[in-house]
Amino acid sequence: MEHRRETIAILGSTGSIGRSTLEIAARLNDKYRVTGLAAGSNVTLLLKQTAEFKPEIVSLRTERDAAEFRRRYKGGRVRVTFGPEGAVEVAGRSGNDIVVSAITGIDGLGPTLAAVKAGKKVALANKESMVVAGAFLKREAARSKARIIPVDSEHSGVFQCLAGQKMESVSRVILTASGGPFFRTPLGEIGRKTLDDALRHPRWRMGKKVTVDSATLMNKGLELIEARWLFDLDPARLDVLIHPQSIVHSLVEMRDGSVLAQLSRTDMKVPIQYALTYPEREVSPLPALDLSRIGPLEFHRVDERKFPLFALARTVLEEGESLPVALNAANEAVVGAFLAGGVRFGALAGLVERCLAAHVKRPVRNITEVFDIDRETRETAKIILKQRT
Amino acid sequence: MEHRRETIAILGSTGSIGRSTLEIAARLNDKYRVTGLAAGSNVTLLLKQTAEFKPEIVSLRTERDAAEFRRRYKGGRVRVTFGPEGAVEVAGRSGNDIVVSAITGIDGLGPTLAAVKAGKKVALANKESMVVAGAFLKREAARSKARIIPVDSEHSGVFQCLAGQKMESVSRVILTASGGPFFRTPLGEIGRKTLDDALRHPRWRMGKKVTVDSATLMNKGLELIEARWLFDLDPARLDVLIHPQSIVHSLVEMRDGSVLAQLSRTDMKVPIQYALTYPEREVSPLPALDLSRIGPLEFHRVDERKFPLFALARTVLEEGESLPVALNAANEAVVGAFLAGGVRFGALAGLVERCLAAHVKRPVRNITEVFDIDRETRETAKIILKQRT
Repeated sequence: MEHRRETIAILGSTGSIGRSTLEIAARLNDKYRVTGLAAGSNVTLLLKQTAEFKPEIVSLRTERDAAEFRRRYKGGRVRVTFGPEGAVEVAGRSGNDIVVSAITGIDGLGPTLAAVKAGKKVALANKESMVVAGAFLKREAARSKARIIPVDSEHSGVFQCLAGQKMESVSRVILTASGGPFFRTPLGEIGRKTLDDALRHPRWRMGKKVTVDSATLMNKGLELIEARWLFDLDPARLDVLIHPQSIVHSLVEMRDGSVLAQLSRTDMKVPIQYALTYPEREVSPLPALDLSRIGPLEFHRVDERKFPLFALARTVLEEGESLPVALNAANEAVVGAFLAGGVRFGALAGLVERCLAAHVKRPVRNITEVFDIDRETRETAKIILKQRT
Repeated sequence: MEHRRETIAILGSTGSIGRSTLEIAARLNDKYRVTGLAAGSNVTLLLKQTAEFKPEIVSLRTERDAAEFRRRYKGGRVRVTFGPEGAVEVAGRSGNDIVVSAITGIDGLGPTLAAVKAGKKVALANKESMVVAGAFLKREAARSKARIIPVDSEHSGVFQCLAGQKMESVSRVILTASGGPFFRTPLGEIGRKTLDDALRHPRWRMGKKVTVDSATLMNKGLELIEARWLFDLDPARLDVLIHPQSIVHSLVEMRDGSVLAQLSRTDMKVPIQYALTYPEREVSPLPALDLSRIGPLEFHRVDERKFPLFALARTVLEEGESLPVALNAANEAVVGAFLAGGVRFGALAGLVERCLAAHVKRPVRNITEVFDIDRETRETAKIILKQRT
């Protein structure tokens, strides 16, 4: 019997999540067909991906990149687009069943929203969308019947634990954090750490921005805000534990004293594949997790003096309104400057705090206002970063 | 609005599980009403329980105990019965919605079967029923629409992890074992251990028989056989890990590399309450599990040289037919002799093995044959135990 393969569009196909998704799609190619790819400016890799997967549409960040792609492309028919509109077109196209949203940062919001509005099954790796516009995405998903399946390993874990459970029975959701490279660094020494130190993550291999966010634990703060919207949980029911082994990704505490947890190897292909195949599960080529060969599993509370950006994110989670948008924008701007060099690791928290201090908290009424607050905060950050130098 | 409370009969009400069940029923007394109690020979405690919970029927092990109960009882109307038929009557009575099956050993089989045949929701703590007659109990439950909810903490954990998952996606079910009091005892010293040593369980407070079975790890072997029937899993998909902290009770490995686990404090009230309230969950007065205050969680493989009865149970699990019945009977008889004094801890495995060596493996066609094989093996055990002295 001939069966129809599900079609996948990947936003951020040349990034870490995008490449892993394509690996899975290639392995499960009797189930999936890739029909759209949106990339940044890695033209060479996108050409390779296009030759292999033969999508119907590709998009690049700029017109120049798109022109270069067209010049170098030798394959069959493919529509080549570019810019935010290009990514939105890839996301919302009627030929896709599944959209993997894996563009990093606020740039992912527009295409993610397009996928949600079009009622797709959205495998969400772009946590910033949920952080800054969770209420709007959830509302649109309810309208369009889009299903949002988280790809972040922690949220995938929560999602898996919640299957078959009633939300009214859940007393707390706990995300684990590896603690990043500085978990065991004494308080007094963290300030002196460098970009190289921050990029040396002990467990996960990820993009640079999220690796820095893991070192400050801002990543976990953003994930709490993401969880707040994904699972419709009030902030008091959200918690974090440091778990340096990164085997347990999250825990769901039920009101009767039982706790459900999800574990796996630290390989993003586990949650990516789950998001694609949900509600089914397909065989994975990864060796089974053998807990007897992994050192003991430790759990610690977060020391908020060592991780002030995590403490800031918790406050923002509780206060809500426009603050998550401003926090995300300030953090992206400041981490961007850190990655470019010239900002000390120890200065990150103070800089983000100064950006937030300059922000006037207010309700966010629509997506346009999300982009306005984002832009405004980046302007503020630019000035604050300039004052320093 | 007046609502009807669910009615509970408890088989083994004066034992550890029975007493905990009554505590829960008292706390959740707007949901549950206790209508039947079957006890052994603790007349004094059954009198107290009857005064407090006002069941419609009680049963004791012997006619003498029942006569004593009647003599000392000062309360309202209650039917007093005794013997195996008494327990069966309590179990199968039309007034009960839920039957908690917590009589230890083969004695629990008759009443459990009666509850299953009557289509009750059966909270199953009597693992021996499933070990010796799992195929029959499952067949009867399918006929009568009885639901069997496990009370053993490990099986309750598996049951909870499987909610919302498809069995075809499950690659392995792992039960944890605390390792009992001798997990860290060197191989050469285990043989010399005494009854007192064996009864000093590091984590769980339970009846004496199951505490000894925890020291030999036979308990975990029986639990594997129980899991085989409860979850319809072939032996190759069942495994055990030693986890001395007894916080993770079981793990369910999915074929896509995810593992789901259930954790809780080592308090049997968690799985008992879950079995009663399933599919709902009610608030528990237990303090939340705080993993940051518990030492690291360790997992080890079982050293089968140290725990030969576990190795034997694994073989029996794989070979099936009449062997589980013979194993359970031999173990009950030998542990009984150990509890009575006069058998060394180091001799337990050899004695059970000799009983099994004398048994001729054969198919079991019905429940009568289960009882026949059980009786026959106990006779063999009696002879073997006598030869020793």
